[in-house]
Amino acid sequence: MSGRLAVIGLGPGNAGQVTPEAIRAVAEARFFYGYKPYIDRLDLRPDQQAIASDNREELARAREAIEKAMKGESVAVVSGGDAGVFAMAAAVCEAIEAGPPEWRDIDLTVVPGITAMLAVAARIGAPLGHDFCAVSLSDNLKPWDLIELRLLAAAGAGFVIALYNPISKSRPWQLGRAFEGLSAVLPGTTPVIFGRAAGRPDERIRIVPLAEARADMADMATCVIIGSPETRTIPRDGKPPLVYTPRSATGPSR
Amino acid sequence: MSGRLAVIGLGPGNAGQVTPEAIRAVAEARFFYGYKPYIDRLDLRPDQQAIASDNREELARAREAIEKAMKGESVAVVSGGDAGVFAMAAAVCEAIEAGPPEWRDIDLTVVPGITAMLAVAARIGAPLGHDFCAVSLSDNLKPWDLIELRLLAAAGAGFVIALYNPISKSRPWQLGRAFEGLSAVLPGTTPVIFGRAAGRPDERIRIVPLAEARADMADMATCVIIGSPETRTIPRDGKPPLVYTPRSATGPSR
Repeated sequence: MSGRLAVIGLGPGNAGQVTPEAIRAVAEARFFYGYKPYIDRLDLRPDQQAIASDNREELARAREAIEKAMKGESVAVVSGGDAGVFAMAAAVCEAIEAGPPEWRDIDLTVVPGITAMLAVAARIGAPLGHDFCAVSLSDNLKPWDLIELRLLAAAGAGFVIALYNPISKSRPWQLGRAFEGLSAVLPGTTPVIFGRAAGRPDERIRIVPLAEARADMADMATCVIIGSPETRTIPRDGKPPLVYTPRSATGPSR
Repeated sequence: MSGRLAVIGLGPGNAGQVTPEAIRAVAEARFFYGYKPYIDRLDLRPDQQAIASDNREELARAREAIEKAMKGESVAVVSGGDAGVFAMAAAVCEAIEAGPPEWRDIDLTVVPGITAMLAVAARIGAPLGHDFCAVSLSDNLKPWDLIELRLLAAAGAGFVIALYNPISKSRPWQLGRAFEGLSAVLPGTTPVIFGRAAGRPDERIRIVPLAEARADMADMATCVIIGSPETRTIPRDGKPPLVYTPRSATGPSR
């Protein structure tokens, strides 16, 4: 008899942005798998046990969690943000597809959460107010050429772009290259938002024009949002500007 | 002296997906502006007052809410899902930019929420597990040509596509046209998810291959997710299939 596996999105990192559904799912599980910083956010009871692992071992972690659940246990895999956006829900599905047929019987629940781009956007106005896309800048699992192609296609078609996984120690040059490529198709005045740790005590939100955007303005905890040519900035006295993308757009070739 | 204006995302529509932050923001406001179905979700105290309006009057509603807040009142504008995704936060920013200069002094907060595509994705696996975009199919405020251009650019570059506002009485043909256009660039086997009222009692989630997708499978409460060529379907005995987009992708021209 198989147990239960919940893949839970814990939101950007403050308690006010964890849904009641996520809190309930955490309360109902006994074994917790996840990247250590997310596991550390949990306030577990003595009868609950955490198995933290490194960021790079998503598939192994997914398999381990599924095996535990298949033994009849109640298991949770936790992600920051939304569990389904560049996070553990896809890894769990991959493991199920590649695993033994009985794994498909598992009682699987995915609990959505506030994903980083939504939290960052809310702090600055409404940059995602119209058509947008989300791109992971990590070339660990896809070729850089494909990332570049997607960025240029999206910018050329007028999408606002949210970049996840913009930079890390092992991927130092990709974000700079992305800004370079985008500068060829977007005005230098396009607003770029560096949203670090949105909603957490160490939050830092910074807006610069694309022409001045530099890779060292981001770190691993940053979600970068690049406006479209329609995106507007409203200056305010004594307050950070508002950045928003209007609900209307005027034509294919702007 | 200006009051406060909170633009609040109430999530997809079940209490388990409303954040504590949104609940707090609702508790702190006295006047509520919004589309009636969202206003109806609130359980207001006798000292709180709701001003419901029609769906088409976003800008007028935003102005009215700002004017009320400028009189020193504590005002909330409520949206379903996330307030910043095809919703009221952009309309409020538009109104501020076009309004008198003193409107820029307003104490504005945007409270993010679980947006529809995240709720739908969670019910079916992880279709948004890799690069994706969100497109509003409404041509009330942008030309249809631009929408078509964006859909084709996104599909051609391998993005999963979430469609918001797919259909309405006054926009009956757009979704069918979108499926037609996408069929020219995507395999007929590409999974299409019709996610209606995800997480609510009247939820209905349906998966069909693109070749069989029809506009009448959606209504106003539906978020449609169209897979990429990488998106996979895992059949399961006695359960709906899982649909997910792997974390890896293999090349620009797949």
